[in-house]
Amino acid sequence: MVFKKKKLANGLDLIGEVNKSAKSAAVGFFVRTGSRDETKQINGVSHFLEHMLFKGTENLDAFEVNKAFDGTGAQFNAFTSEENTVYYAAVLPEYVIEVTKLWIELMRPALRDEDFNIEKNVIKEEIAMYKDTPSFDVMDRCRSLHFGGHPCGNSVLGGEKSIEDLTVEQMRNYFVTRYAPDNMIFTCAGNFDWGQICSTLETFCLKWQGQAVARKLEHFEGSKKKERIEKSNLACEHICLISPCVSFRDPRRFAAALLSVIVGDNVGSRFFWELVDKALAEVATMQYSPMDGTGALYSYIRCSGKNVSKVLGIVGDIFRSLSHEGITKDELRKAKNKVLSALVIKNELPMGRLLDLGFNWIYLKQYHTIEDDVKAVKAVTVDGVNSLIEQFNPGDFTQFSIGPACNESGQH
Amino acid sequence: MVFKKKKLANGLDLIGEVNKSAKSAAVGFFVRTGSRDETKQINGVSHFLEHMLFKGTENLDAFEVNKAFDGTGAQFNAFTSEENTVYYAAVLPEYVIEVTKLWIELMRPALRDEDFNIEKNVIKEEIAMYKDTPSFDVMDRCRSLHFGGHPCGNSVLGGEKSIEDLTVEQMRNYFVTRYAPDNMIFTCAGNFDWGQICSTLETFCLKWQGQAVARKLEHFEGSKKKERIEKSNLACEHICLISPCVSFRDPRRFAAALLSVIVGDNVGSRFFWELVDKALAEVATMQYSPMDGTGALYSYIRCSGKNVSKVLGIVGDIFRSLSHEGITKDELRKAKNKVLSALVIKNELPMGRLLDLGFNWIYLKQYHTIEDDVKAVKAVTVDGVNSLIEQFNPGDFTQFSIGPACNESGQH
Repeated sequence: MVFKKKKLANGLDLIGEVNKSAKSAAVGFFVRTGSRDETKQINGVSHFLEHMLFKGTENLDAFEVNKAFDGTGAQFNAFTSEENTVYYAAVLPEYVIEVTKLWIELMRPALRDEDFNIEKNVIKEEIAMYKDTPSFDVMDRCRSLHFGGHPCGNSVLGGEKSIEDLTVEQMRNYFVTRYAPDNMIFTCAGNFDWGQICSTLETFCLKWQGQAVARKLEHFEGSKKKERIEKSNLACEHICLISPCVSFRDPRRFAAALLSVIVGDNVGSRFFWELVDKALAEVATMQYSPMDGTGALYSYIRCSGKNVSKVLGIVGDIFRSLSHEGITKDELRKAKNKVLSALVIKNELPMGRLLDLGFNWIYLKQYHTIEDDVKAVKAVTVDGVNSLIEQFNPGDFTQFSIGPACNESGQH
Repeated sequence: MVFKKKKLANGLDLIGEVNKSAKSAAVGFFVRTGSRDETKQINGVSHFLEHMLFKGTENLDAFEVNKAFDGTGAQFNAFTSEENTVYYAAVLPEYVIEVTKLWIELMRPALRDEDFNIEKNVIKEEIAMYKDTPSFDVMDRCRSLHFGGHPCGNSVLGGEKSIEDLTVEQMRNYFVTRYAPDNMIFTCAGNFDWGQICSTLETFCLKWQGQAVARKLEHFEGSKKKERIEKSNLACEHICLISPCVSFRDPRRFAAALLSVIVGDNVGSRFFWELVDKALAEVATMQYSPMDGTGALYSYIRCSGKNVSKVLGIVGDIFRSLSHEGITKDELRKAKNKVLSALVIKNELPMGRLLDLGFNWIYLKQYHTIEDDVKAVKAVTVDGVNSLIEQFNPGDFTQFSIGPACNESGQH
C-alpha cells in the first residue's frame, strides 16, 4: 500500500492508495456538500443535483452517459448525505482511466431545463416512497426534531414543497458554489497507475474555477423533545432516539464508535440482550454518526405496540446504568474485537477502502493507514468511554415515534 | 487460488479455496433446506430453525454463543431462502479455527422449549414488519400466486397461523432430517490452513449421523394469474411479475442472467430507458433466480398510482419486442461487461467468494474458478439468449400488485 497525493493549482485534492495485488480499483469524487449546506427554500437540492449529474453534460446526453458506463462494466453509484455527495465506481484495472474520465466529464453537468423538470417527478416519487417506509421516515423526522433550526436537521431528500418550488436557476447557482474544485476531492484505491491518474485529472480539471466555500461549524446540543405520530395500517412501533456526541475531528470518535457497539450492536450489545434476545423488540440498534463540528448517537427500535412502555423503560434503565456505572472492561474488549475485524475486512476491498480514504481526507485532511486506525481503536480505554458518557449522556435524548393507533388501554 | 475438497465418512462435504494473499477468511455451513422443503403445516420452520441455532447447544446458552462470536470479532450472520439455509462468518485469519469450531457446535442445537416459545414472538414480529414493507410483501405474495400448490411458492417466513401452531417437536423432527451431514456442506475461502480445517471438521463432525434426504425436483410453468390488493396509506403502486425460466443446473443460466440485465438492470436496461429514465416508474428491475430443478425471472416495479396503466402497457411492449425481435448484439456486449466486472469484484472478497463456491457445490457438485464463470459468460451468444426467450417468454407472467385505493377515474 503506497499513499499518493497532489493538489492541483485550482485547489482540487487528488489522493490515492495503490495496492498492486488488488484485482480491481475504485475511484470517486467526494464533494463537500449536502443537506446541511442548504437553506429551507432549496432543501433537497444537493440530492436532486446528484441525480442531475447522470443526465449528462454539454457533450453527452443521459443515454450516452449510461452507454459510457456500460462500456467500462463499472459498478457505479452516488449518494448524498447531510454533509457529502459522493460519486464512485469500482472497475477492473484496465478501465480505471476510462471511468475516471467519465466522472470528470459528469462533474460539469449541463443541468438542462427539460431534464430538470422530468427528474423533479422522480424526486417526488422517491419522497413519497420513503413516506411508505416508517423505519426511514422516523429517522428523518427525529433528526429534524433533534436539530430544530440547525441546518443538520434538514432532510436529505427535501420536502414536497421545497422540491416543487425549486427552480433550475437555484440549482445552477448552488452547483457553482458547492462543486468548486477546492470543495471536492478525487480519491482512488486498489490497482491503478498514479501517474496516469494525475495526468488525466490535470488535463481535464484544471479549467475548473476555484472559489472559497464556507460551512458553518457549530456544536449543537439537540432539542431533547419527544413526539409521536400515528399511522393506520402499521403493525409495529418505530422509535428513533438521538443524543449529541463528538464530531469527526474529535479524537474521541473512536471511543464513541465503541460505545455505540457496546450499547446497540446487532448482536451481543446491551440493547440486544435486554430487548432483542428477550423478544421485546425486533430490532434495537445504536449507531454513531460523526459529522463536521458535531456528532450524534442514533438509536432505532422496532417493537410491537403492546411492548412500547416496557421497551422504553428498559432503554431508560440501560442509559441510567451507563451513566452511573459506566461500561466494563469486558464489554470494551469485545467491542474492540468487532470494530477491528470489521475495519480490516471492509478495507480489504478497494471500494470499502475508497470511502475511508475519502472521508479521512474530507474531514481531517489526513491520510490514515488501516494500521493507524487499528492503533487508535486499540488505544481507547474504559475511562475514555466513561468520561465520554459523562459529557454526552446518551440518556438525554430527542425521541420520535411512528406507530399504530393507540389501543383502548392507551398504554403508549 | 488452490481448490481443496474432502468428503467425510458420514457424507459431509468440505470444500475450500485458499488465497494466501487475502487479509481475511470466510467460512460457512450451507444446508440444503428451505421453505420449499416444508409442508403447509410447518411453513416457516426452516427460517425459525435458523434463528434457533443462535439460541445455543447442550454446552452453550445463547449468551455464551454471543460471547464466543464476540471473542473472534467475526462478522457473522445467516439467511434462509426457498432452498438453502446458510451460516457464515468473515474473520481475520488468526480466528478461522475458533469460529469454525463455533459453527460446528451450533449446527447441533439444543432447541429448548423455552427458547422456542420466546423466539416464536420474534418470528411473529418479523412477519408483521414485512407486512409493513410493500416491496417485500408484493414479492412474497406474487411468488405464492405464481407457484400455486408447488412448494416453491411457500413463504420463507411462514404465515401467522403456521408459526403460531408450530410445535418444538415438529421443529426437532424437521431438524433431524434436514441437517443430516449428507445434506450440508462446509465451505471456506480466503486465507486459511486447509489441513487445520479438515482435522477440525473430522474431530467434531464425524459423529453426526448421515441419512438420505429427498427433495422433489420438477419444473413448474407458473399460474400466470393476475391479482391486486389495496392498502390505504400507500403512496405508490408496487408490482411484481414472475415468469418461469431455466434451473441452476441448466448451462443456459448464464444466458438467463444476461437477459435479466438487458431487461431490468438498475441502469442502462430496457426497463431503465423506457420507465425510470422517463420518470414513469421510480424503480423497475428484473432479476433471474435460478433454483433447483426450476427457475424464475422476477420483475419489481414501483410507480405512482396514476402511471400504472401506462407503465404496464410499456412493460407489455418491451416483452413483445423481445419475443418478436430478440436482443441486440450491442445489448449483449454491454450486459456481459457489467456481469463480468460484478463477478470479479464480488469474488475479490473472501465473503463474496464463499457464496459462489458454496452455491456451485450445493447445486452442481462442481468447483468453478472465477475464470470458468468468466468464460461461460463470454460464451453466451445473441442466438442463445433469443432461443431462451422463445422457450420462456417473459411476457407470459404471473402478476401481483399492492397499491393505494383506486382513484375516481378508476384508471388501474
